[in-house]
Amino acid sequence: MKKIINGVDQVENEMIQGMVKAYPQYLRKLDCGNVVVRAEKKEGKVALISGGGSGHEPAHGGYVGEGMLDAAVAGAVFTSPTPDQILEGIKAVAADQGVLMVIKNYTGDVMNFEMAGEMAEMEGIPVKQVVVNDDVAVKDSLYTVGRRGVAGTVFVHKIAGAKAEAGASLDEVQAVAQKVIDNVRTMGMAIKPCTVPASGQPGFELTDEEMEVGIGIHGEPGTHREPLKKADEIVDMLLEKILADIDYTGREVAVMINGSGATPLMELFIINNHVADVLAAKGVKVYKTLVGNYMTSIEMAGFSISLLRLDDEMKELLDAKADTPAFKA
Amino acid sequence: MKKIINGVDQVENEMIQGMVKAYPQYLRKLDCGNVVVRAEKKEGKVALISGGGSGHEPAHGGYVGEGMLDAAVAGAVFTSPTPDQILEGIKAVAADQGVLMVIKNYTGDVMNFEMAGEMAEMEGIPVKQVVVNDDVAVKDSLYTVGRRGVAGTVFVHKIAGAKAEAGASLDEVQAVAQKVIDNVRTMGMAIKPCTVPASGQPGFELTDEEMEVGIGIHGEPGTHREPLKKADEIVDMLLEKILADIDYTGREVAVMINGSGATPLMELFIINNHVADVLAAKGVKVYKTLVGNYMTSIEMAGFSISLLRLDDEMKELLDAKADTPAFKA
Repeated sequence: MKKIINGVDQVENEMIQGMVKAYPQYLRKLDCGNVVVRAEKKEGKVALISGGGSGHEPAHGGYVGEGMLDAAVAGAVFTSPTPDQILEGIKAVAADQGVLMVIKNYTGDVMNFEMAGEMAEMEGIPVKQVVVNDDVAVKDSLYTVGRRGVAGTVFVHKIAGAKAEAGASLDEVQAVAQKVIDNVRTMGMAIKPCTVPASGQPGFELTDEEMEVGIGIHGEPGTHREPLKKADEIVDMLLEKILADIDYTGREVAVMINGSGATPLMELFIINNHVADVLAAKGVKVYKTLVGNYMTSIEMAGFSISLLRLDDEMKELLDAKADTPAFKA
Repeated sequence: MKKIINGVDQVENEMIQGMVKAYPQYLRKLDCGNVVVRAEKKEGKVALISGGGSGHEPAHGGYVGEGMLDAAVAGAVFTSPTPDQILEGIKAVAADQGVLMVIKNYTGDVMNFEMAGEMAEMEGIPVKQVVVNDDVAVKDSLYTVGRRGVAGTVFVHKIAGAKAEAGASLDEVQAVAQKVIDNVRTMGMAIKPCTVPASGQPGFELTDEEMEVGIGIHGEPGTHREPLKKADEIVDMLLEKILADIDYTGREVAVMINGSGATPLMELFIINNHVADVLAAKGVKVYKTLVGNYMTSIEMAGFSISLLRLDDEMKELLDAKADTPAFKA
């Protein structure tokens, strides 16, 4: 394992401290656990909280700020945060209008967020939730019953965050978050693994000629392993599965080409070049494209494509102001 | 070489196409060569043009837009663009107010930009230039006479770009660009090399226990190679050299923790955690911090630290509105 760190037991804490020191105008860290909240609490709106294991930076702390999240809870690398941690986050941002939890569909995350939500409700805080499950690669996998929640989660943060910022009710914010989930699909692949610091060993091994197709954001196995193909052929393969899942024909979409952490932007743009061409040929109209490291897997090399099928409400909320460390609009 | 590409001879062109297709609201590609300009030409202001070899994405195309560059010229990977290409860029954005070229100090870049500038002047376009040389690691190196121009260039784009956008004269924009150069210092290191697609071989080799200190953004050798140390020790070493070069004591600075392309954000935040502590202990006040992939070296793993010593004018221009694909303020 070759990493620029101080010690495997300090990774999560030093990372969160370094993030908060970089962005004090946006972020404040709670004293207990790795929970970040907005530097200045916004009153009079539904609060959004998300989180999960560390290792997906800038998710989720980077999305805390105006128009997106109110709190992000970070567990150990690739490990769900505890219910106590999540509860502290909920209590720190709780408003009379209630709290929406945005959960990626991993068994540990769902269980711990739900438990925290129940504890918060017992303390009189209205809590609702949505579970993101945008990965079309596999149903049921190593850590998940049903589809995994991956990069499409960032669209939920953006659009539900804008709805909350505009003063919508908890039911309305939950409804638009669910609408995003119903309309976003993602699939990814990787050519090089990542190493969880505490383990010290790569999560999987690939030869120089192989790629893993349909991989999850923790390096979980995908649909299959096969010889590395050209970028355009990989894009064709991923898009075919995404476009077969819901009907995008004639619709406007938001596209996210998400890097896994060690993928150069050069490659992400080469990928987008073909994604744009294929969508145009299939009569899918691109409304907005995001290219970059939005939901990473430490230093995995690979990418995912997300397509969000838009309507007028989602377009307006996607374009609404966001001012966070990792997402500005 | 394991990359997600189609062919080594298509890399630069497909990358630029993919960038322009991702951001049509910001960018337009000229028909001749890999030159991108603002989608809508801004009239009545000094035009800023920069560029260099490809492989440093999002530099420089990602910084074309309101408040930053008017044009970016991309050569082959790690290879200077030709004078003809640069001239086309200059002519596409030329204004009565003149054109400022922001050149990173590499022998090929300086020669080709200067030649293009002279050709443009012969066509009646007023052209001035600045040469960025922020790298304190080594004087004279593989591609450079004098210090290399590296990540600090992004501060020049931001601050000179804001000055131009505000309607300043060519002399004034050049003067503030030079002021940034006079006050910004950078030093980097790497733990894993990058591979230029056309070469197919890593630019250098390191064992699993080694790091290269003072490396350039093309993987050029730095000051020395030594056993990989802890993140905090590496930060101490780089900051010592930066802080010895000009006096930052009691001053406000902008900090950039720049990833080389394959460095996870997790590590960049761990690095910033100690940078912030060291600067606080030394009485250097951090005004703003940027953490991310701003000036990369394809998929090199490593980082650089840049410190820009600020005054009131630079603070105001750093905070001024910027709206580009890779930098929003």
